[in-house]
Amino acid sequence: MKSTVLTVGTEILFGSIVNTNAAYLSQQLQLLGIDVMYHHTVGDNDRRLRDVIDLCFRDCDLIVTTGGLGPTEDDLTKETVAAALGDTLVLHQPSLDAMRARIEMNGRKMTPNNVKQAYLPSRATPFPNACGTAPGFALERDGKIIMCFPGPPHELKDMWERQALPYLAKYVDGVIYHRMVRTFGIGESALETKLLDLIDGQTDPTLATYAKPGIADVRVASKRKTLEEAKAAVEDMIGKVMDRVGDYVYSTDGEEIYDVLAKRLIRDGITLSVAESMTGGLFAGKITSTSGVSAVFDRGIVTYTNRAKIDELGVSEGTLETHDAVSPEVAKEMVEGLAKKTGSDLCLSVTGYAGPGGGTEECPVGTAFIGCSYKGRTIVHHLLPGPNDNRELNRNRALLTMASVALGMLDGKR
Amino acid sequence: MKSTVLTVGTEILFGSIVNTNAAYLSQQLQLLGIDVMYHHTVGDNDRRLRDVIDLCFRDCDLIVTTGGLGPTEDDLTKETVAAALGDTLVLHQPSLDAMRARIEMNGRKMTPNNVKQAYLPSRATPFPNACGTAPGFALERDGKIIMCFPGPPHELKDMWERQALPYLAKYVDGVIYHRMVRTFGIGESALETKLLDLIDGQTDPTLATYAKPGIADVRVASKRKTLEEAKAAVEDMIGKVMDRVGDYVYSTDGEEIYDVLAKRLIRDGITLSVAESMTGGLFAGKITSTSGVSAVFDRGIVTYTNRAKIDELGVSEGTLETHDAVSPEVAKEMVEGLAKKTGSDLCLSVTGYAGPGGGTEECPVGTAFIGCSYKGRTIVHHLLPGPNDNRELNRNRALLTMASVALGMLDGKR
Repeated sequence: MKSTVLTVGTEILFGSIVNTNAAYLSQQLQLLGIDVMYHHTVGDNDRRLRDVIDLCFRDCDLIVTTGGLGPTEDDLTKETVAAALGDTLVLHQPSLDAMRARIEMNGRKMTPNNVKQAYLPSRATPFPNACGTAPGFALERDGKIIMCFPGPPHELKDMWERQALPYLAKYVDGVIYHRMVRTFGIGESALETKLLDLIDGQTDPTLATYAKPGIADVRVASKRKTLEEAKAAVEDMIGKVMDRVGDYVYSTDGEEIYDVLAKRLIRDGITLSVAESMTGGLFAGKITSTSGVSAVFDRGIVTYTNRAKIDELGVSEGTLETHDAVSPEVAKEMVEGLAKKTGSDLCLSVTGYAGPGGGTEECPVGTAFIGCSYKGRTIVHHLLPGPNDNRELNRNRALLTMASVALGMLDGKR
Repeated sequence: MKSTVLTVGTEILFGSIVNTNAAYLSQQLQLLGIDVMYHHTVGDNDRRLRDVIDLCFRDCDLIVTTGGLGPTEDDLTKETVAAALGDTLVLHQPSLDAMRARIEMNGRKMTPNNVKQAYLPSRATPFPNACGTAPGFALERDGKIIMCFPGPPHELKDMWERQALPYLAKYVDGVIYHRMVRTFGIGESALETKLLDLIDGQTDPTLATYAKPGIADVRVASKRKTLEEAKAAVEDMIGKVMDRVGDYVYSTDGEEIYDVLAKRLIRDGITLSVAESMTGGLFAGKITSTSGVSAVFDRGIVTYTNRAKIDELGVSEGTLETHDAVSPEVAKEMVEGLAKKTGSDLCLSVTGYAGPGGGTEECPVGTAFIGCSYKGRTIVHHLLPGPNDNRELNRNRALLTMASVALGMLDGKR
């Protein structure tokens, strides 16, 4: 089954709000094995809405709409949908009664334009709204289906789970299972090159690569008759992916690298402390976003000034003078000082140029030195500048590298 | 001028990522006075992409696309766009040279599929990419324009500002000027109530409120013949807004509260140190995201364990035992210990329950105590739990409150 997610509303077109409903519905439809071919957003305009519906039905059997069910005059989704499937609106008394009860329960009075919300296409399957006034509905004709939901996300989600899932059960054959393999340190195009025959040759499971700054993901998905079969096919393919690019993989489960590291530390009872200059506390912030990490995270020290590096970490003034604050020597003294002070099993340090100012010929903006000390051994990783000198991205690259270096040390790969 | 925002990419259709690019482009187009009639998202499919382009051009003169410019085989936006406007792709040597320089600077090698990214429609106006490999471009024919941008948001934004704005200048009549007034500590609906007559009564300047967790913004925009007229109208309206809700405003310029604080500290040469428990280093990370802050930011201490609070900040064991680590007493000892240790002019501390676990009957999850010490005076602010107990939102609320408390102290309001 193929589908479209159609959002009706000017607030999306103004950019005032981000269309999270479309992402939610896409995920839900995928989970049912229903392909999503389009997202469309249209204002409250009858002709354009109708054009889009007609376009969607060239490829799709199902259109899921959100928004445009409100009480005001410009809310015309229902009229247009009914017309597209050869129906007209009639008053749906149970919806009107439910609406009156809800409004009066809140101590308000029905307004005439509320009544408009209780009109539904005559052949519609109504979806009562447990969280708001506007009912949703599904309407079918000749194998084409339109399902209409209200725009507020909590109303949509509640109605989807209570009403849409049972309604759609009869149309869903097969089950989709997917996993997200996450890599660091290999670009998207190099990753794809290594997986090209798997990507090109496969219809199921399918592989697709996605890039974010510093990270490249591979989504492995399978649609089979049963969940077990789909899972087995995905696991098998993940094995092949690991054979080729396993060195770069930090999660086969879509997790953030910081979560992977934090959970590993919690599982193995390895304590951690961090000394940050360039990243200004963000690494500690990332690691502590995982709940339960307080069992193993001891402390973080953000040493922005030379004075702080000397006082807090025992970095020597001589080293700072001879080698500059951004140097492998300082990264090493930072992490060794931290290890001595805290006794934590795993210690990390970072010093670098986040930019836009600063940097030297030898160490341009984007350069970072990352110290890592584990089981009495210290290494310093030299991170070269990335493809841009944006402060946020430079700091982000350093953060990802810190986590990657730490995982490498724990795994005995560094 | 009427426009469409067209996103190309299966990751949006899968719901793996939310389409923030569409919201950004909508806002940008609105600022230029260009109406947005549609948002569309299509996968990498030539025929469906073409169908959507044809549909858009029934109503619109301008289509702005993002995504589908990648190096991989399924990236076919350029081919389809060129065909829709009667053009074909040719190798654009300057783009290829720039791409090679960028890739080699990073110590990587061009792959054959990178070369694909340097092909552009023969009549295109190229948009060099300052943040990545794929160039964008604009292509026109018979009054119809398609502008293509890469999908990664930072590449899109950089290219939009550097390339698209100058390119579009000739199509825009009248000038839009806008300012974003940012508030903290007043909800969106209370804010709207206080500004309701200004919002309802005005056609120009227009006011619109936007809410994010903890923050409510007011966008004041004017479209006039000249920039001077538009600016004057906006400034005048901002004056009215300040008269009503000025106590809650921390920026009339769309700045983050952390930037406002950091710039204030830099301007006045006020040194800062921070001791964080609940927020795990994120406050230091936020403050150090402002370039130049190294002149005033001394250090941050992330004391997650009691041991760290005692060692690093001199919190007394007795206080931790009697009052619990999350208490006003501990927040006070943390900040006073930090001030004593560092001698920084302004010191902040925070201790609280981020959740999901933890919390007590007296201090449920979401509670935080924020210590602030300035010019020898220390206060402790008690932050009550918010409307949810999500770890990320709780930490974020604490971060915003820390910045707000610090600004209040500097202003003598606390």
